[in-house]
Amino acid sequence: MRFLLTIQYVGTRYAGWQTQSNATGVQQIVEQALSTMCGQRVRIEGASRTDSGVHALGQRAHADLPIDIDSQGLVRGLSDLLPPDIRAVEARIVDSSFHARFNATAKTYVYQIWNGPVADVFRRETHAHVRTRLNLTAMREAAGSLIGEHDFRSFTVLNTERSSTIRTIEEACVDGDDDVIRLFIRGNGFLRFMVRRIAGSLIEVGRESVPSDAIGRALEPEFGEARWTAPAEGLTLLSVRYPEWPAGPVNLPFSS
Amino acid sequence: MRFLLTIQYVGTRYAGWQTQSNATGVQQIVEQALSTMCGQRVRIEGASRTDSGVHALGQRAHADLPIDIDSQGLVRGLSDLLPPDIRAVEARIVDSSFHARFNATAKTYVYQIWNGPVADVFRRETHAHVRTRLNLTAMREAAGSLIGEHDFRSFTVLNTERSSTIRTIEEACVDGDDDVIRLFIRGNGFLRFMVRRIAGSLIEVGRESVPSDAIGRALEPEFGEARWTAPAEGLTLLSVRYPEWPAGPVNLPFSS
Repeated sequence: MRFLLTIQYVGTRYAGWQTQSNATGVQQIVEQALSTMCGQRVRIEGASRTDSGVHALGQRAHADLPIDIDSQGLVRGLSDLLPPDIRAVEARIVDSSFHARFNATAKTYVYQIWNGPVADVFRRETHAHVRTRLNLTAMREAAGSLIGEHDFRSFTVLNTERSSTIRTIEEACVDGDDDVIRLFIRGNGFLRFMVRRIAGSLIEVGRESVPSDAIGRALEPEFGEARWTAPAEGLTLLSVRYPEWPAGPVNLPFSS
Repeated sequence: MRFLLTIQYVGTRYAGWQTQSNATGVQQIVEQALSTMCGQRVRIEGASRTDSGVHALGQRAHADLPIDIDSQGLVRGLSDLLPPDIRAVEARIVDSSFHARFNATAKTYVYQIWNGPVADVFRRETHAHVRTRLNLTAMREAAGSLIGEHDFRSFTVLNTERSSTIRTIEEACVDGDDDVIRLFIRGNGFLRFMVRRIAGSLIEVGRESVPSDAIGRALEPEFGEARWTAPAEGLTLLSVRYPEWPAGPVNLPFSS
């Protein structure tokens, strides 16, 4: 039986979704828990390969489980086996042809910034700290130029693969509330480091160290490489959209 | 020059405010940072001796510093020397007779509960997880009986010291919002484990495993010992009140 899991994690301790030579990935931890439950090796396929240190509120992954279990029992059982910084919060039975990554039509990320003179200890894991007061108006203007289909080669690492660097951004907005600034971005797919480089560029716009048309200019093909990569801890995969269901978990712990 | 510092910390890694034989206290870490800044041994005196694993948003501590520094420079300098889970967010010059503990007229604590079927990874450090849906009406009714002057001997550990166990609670309220429940309690002083035992008893009332008059009955002198101690991770010292200033930091990261 194929299950689609919704997985949350604080990425601080992990190599990202996938295991690297120097550290364990979240995928491996979840696979170990499922394998313990099922008494045999279980593999899972995630919707997004989040980078080292990046968090998820609504990562999705599918797995074929050889046991007869209902969704609630699966979520409960995993809670007992997973470390406290990883949780499966939902499970649903899907068709055996359903694929967590290939069926996804959009992903939403949030990049969170603590914009105050002193870092907030309670947000140290999930927010990047920027001391300089950021200009939200300039950031919003710059974010607007991301919407639509663009070649995002400037916002990724140089890649020997010849895959396309064209992606479509459906929504990009900057939400500011006192000392917390959140950049929400939803698109049909994201290249490696793309959200962190967009966030890094928007932060530079907010600092007024570059003009607000800097993002638009970086999207022109001859631009070269966007220089600013915002730190991993600020980034969280919020949700993955499938045509069949509304995207991701309802309850965002980020509303303040 | 005597300074009053406002200190925030995530208590997870610490033995509490004071150092114990098996682990370091927050006080010692702050003293080490101040000693490094001043080039000589500096001692600080905290307003509240929070227990192991308990957090603070607005702990206060005073220190006599032998250097000429303004408040902003002091906060900045400490930020560079303290680990990411401890921050001094404010400093102000006080009279040399001011004492962080003796001058305090009230303290406010919050006890935070994640009341959902699956624990929230992003709240694992600061919220206790209770799976059973709690009855907020019963908890509010029970909390009401805490208000006023009472003998709280049932809510502390047996003590060979003969100091008074009478304290006055000014406010006790239960704030519920979907999956997050917060118990706010303000009083002129708290005994060891008192807030955690009150929270533990209120949770039992919320589970409906004891009636809502259980708190009132536990306040009667012949009661004995309240049995339920809620885990340390849910507890945060919000603020300390002095007659001279409004209590604590303005910005609560807990509003959602």
